[in-house]
Amino acid sequence: MLTVRSDSNPIIKSEDVTPTHPELEVIGVFNAGVIRYNQEIILLLRVAERPISLSDHAYISPIYDAEMNELTFLSIPSQGAPLEDARVISTKDGNFLTSISHFRVARSMDGIHFKVDELPAMSAATPYETYGIEDARITKIDDIYYIVYSAISNMGITACLASTTDFVHYTRHGLIFHPDNKDVVIFPEKINGKYYALHRPTTSQFSTPQIWIAQSSNLMEWGNHKLLLGTTKDTWEAGRIGASTVPVKVGEHWLEIYHAADADNRYCLGALLLNGEQPWIIEKKAELPIMEPMMPYELEGFFGNVVFSCGALCEDGKIKLYYGAADTTICYAEIELSLIMDLLS
Amino acid sequence: MLTVRSDSNPIIKSEDVTPTHPELEVIGVFNAGVIRYNQEIILLLRVAERPISLSDHAYISPIYDAEMNELTFLSIPSQGAPLEDARVISTKDGNFLTSISHFRVARSMDGIHFKVDELPAMSAATPYETYGIEDARITKIDDIYYIVYSAISNMGITACLASTTDFVHYTRHGLIFHPDNKDVVIFPEKINGKYYALHRPTTSQFSTPQIWIAQSSNLMEWGNHKLLLGTTKDTWEAGRIGASTVPVKVGEHWLEIYHAADADNRYCLGALLLNGEQPWIIEKKAELPIMEPMMPYELEGFFGNVVFSCGALCEDGKIKLYYGAADTTICYAEIELSLIMDLLS
Repeated sequence: MLTVRSDSNPIIKSEDVTPTHPELEVIGVFNAGVIRYNQEIILLLRVAERPISLSDHAYISPIYDAEMNELTFLSIPSQGAPLEDARVISTKDGNFLTSISHFRVARSMDGIHFKVDELPAMSAATPYETYGIEDARITKIDDIYYIVYSAISNMGITACLASTTDFVHYTRHGLIFHPDNKDVVIFPEKINGKYYALHRPTTSQFSTPQIWIAQSSNLMEWGNHKLLLGTTKDTWEAGRIGASTVPVKVGEHWLEIYHAADADNRYCLGALLLNGEQPWIIEKKAELPIMEPMMPYELEGFFGNVVFSCGALCEDGKIKLYYGAADTTICYAEIELSLIMDLLS
Repeated sequence: MLTVRSDSNPIIKSEDVTPTHPELEVIGVFNAGVIRYNQEIILLLRVAERPISLSDHAYISPIYDAEMNELTFLSIPSQGAPLEDARVISTKDGNFLTSISHFRVARSMDGIHFKVDELPAMSAATPYETYGIEDARITKIDDIYYIVYSAISNMGITACLASTTDFVHYTRHGLIFHPDNKDVVIFPEKINGKYYALHRPTTSQFSTPQIWIAQSSNLMEWGNHKLLLGTTKDTWEAGRIGASTVPVKVGEHWLEIYHAADADNRYCLGALLLNGEQPWIIEKKAELPIMEPMMPYELEGFFGNVVFSCGALCEDGKIKLYYGAADTTICYAEIELSLIMDLLS
């Protein structure tokens, strides 16, 4: 079998995480950035929380009030109707989220058994983050760990940069991609003098969400955008595709594990091999997914039928993949690097 | 009266422009970038063309085929229904345009009587421009004229950078803002060591199109995005707002003439005064529009009820404004700078 899932899956669940607020419950822990830090493996978990007190007559959206620096709860009349998408409350004044996410550090020596910090590593803290922060990716460059994450607010979905050297203190550097954009991963080294990142802008009129590549001289300012990989009609990549893991150097090339959703929002993982010197050129691609939702914990949850990764380690000839299952739990799987390479054509 | 329109309006009309192709007719010339070049005033006109042969049973979308380097015509069954928006053909496979735009230079000594070049200055020429190029803004920095324009394709609406020193030869530099983004204007000088630009991303879910500001070290790579001015519910700025003219230095500040559309797509022009050293800070703003569509040539046309500018000259204590009227013609108006300043509060 290509993908070997851990028998311990899910390795981190909601009940392993302390809520941040007496009126919130943790409904999901998923989509974690991952990095090896000293002897430990560190996950930067996305923890989603929602209000405990639900109402039959209203949806409740938890919103960070940046001016007052406190959590507030927006009540939106529901007329008893269930939500079409459990994640989003659509109104004529815009969309709101049913949960709010923050980041929590989890540490492990063996990569399977994790201890989750009691307190958040990063929570909503700016006007661009009032609906929460989501889906961190971690890229180590020199001795700095750069964290790119999605910031959600009534100004849209933006990609923000933060950094840390110790996973205790975090510095925010501001917005690196304008709305809407998410699934940004920065390559771990300069290529011919430039940094590169994969990103996934959302277009409103003419296209579906796809994977683009941009260059930078200083990690803050990005440009020379190029489309890297587009969606493909009537396939597992028809709906939307975006980068998942930070690209890994394999020989002369860059291996990227990305995600794709079909028209029914079923999220799988795929693999791409990019040119080492010109990373905007796709050398090879796996035609079919390298991982599909099939286990019960992947098929059912807050948002079912989803395997979604924000990070992997490439060690011992394997891709050690941490992934979010059904937007609910963190799971672990291993894939032999040579088997992935065999699938690329 | 605040705005003094030229008696010669419209100063450039479709019939003043030679079509580029035997199967196309010019249906609009509007939204021109403007700059003083030697003794002349140069306009970089947006010229919109559509297929002459219309059909009762199909909409026809003119599309540039980048691979073959030729114009093609896509026929989309119409079932006889008129389009909701005359500019856009919506299909389940995405949106297409009813016209394709390119840029044409027009030259004048007096700023009113223009001679339009016989041939395009720039036309669709890359895969990102297959639906045309639109709405150029020209910023002179040192002795180079930088042109930022919208490139439209099935990959979305992107902002591209080009440059010229003679308005004869143009060099493309690539995409500076990812999709969807338009209405990008670059400030004419560095501020504390950084270039700045106003831009207008389109968000898909959480917000309306609004004016953002970004910084750059090299004009190609942009970041540190901040929201500058948002839409305001139930006002003339409710629907969408974007930068129009390249900001003009007025004393210690930057004056920006921008556009705003209300919920009914009525486009007006507004005025903003930005901090000279920190251009992401709005010092003052005109509460009401400084210009509204009211003349017959502004009220009716390909897309009526529109005044929309891509450039102005600030000379002789006046804003000399070139603007597109009803997406159909180029018009001219003057506004005393002191009168605009009086409206700001």
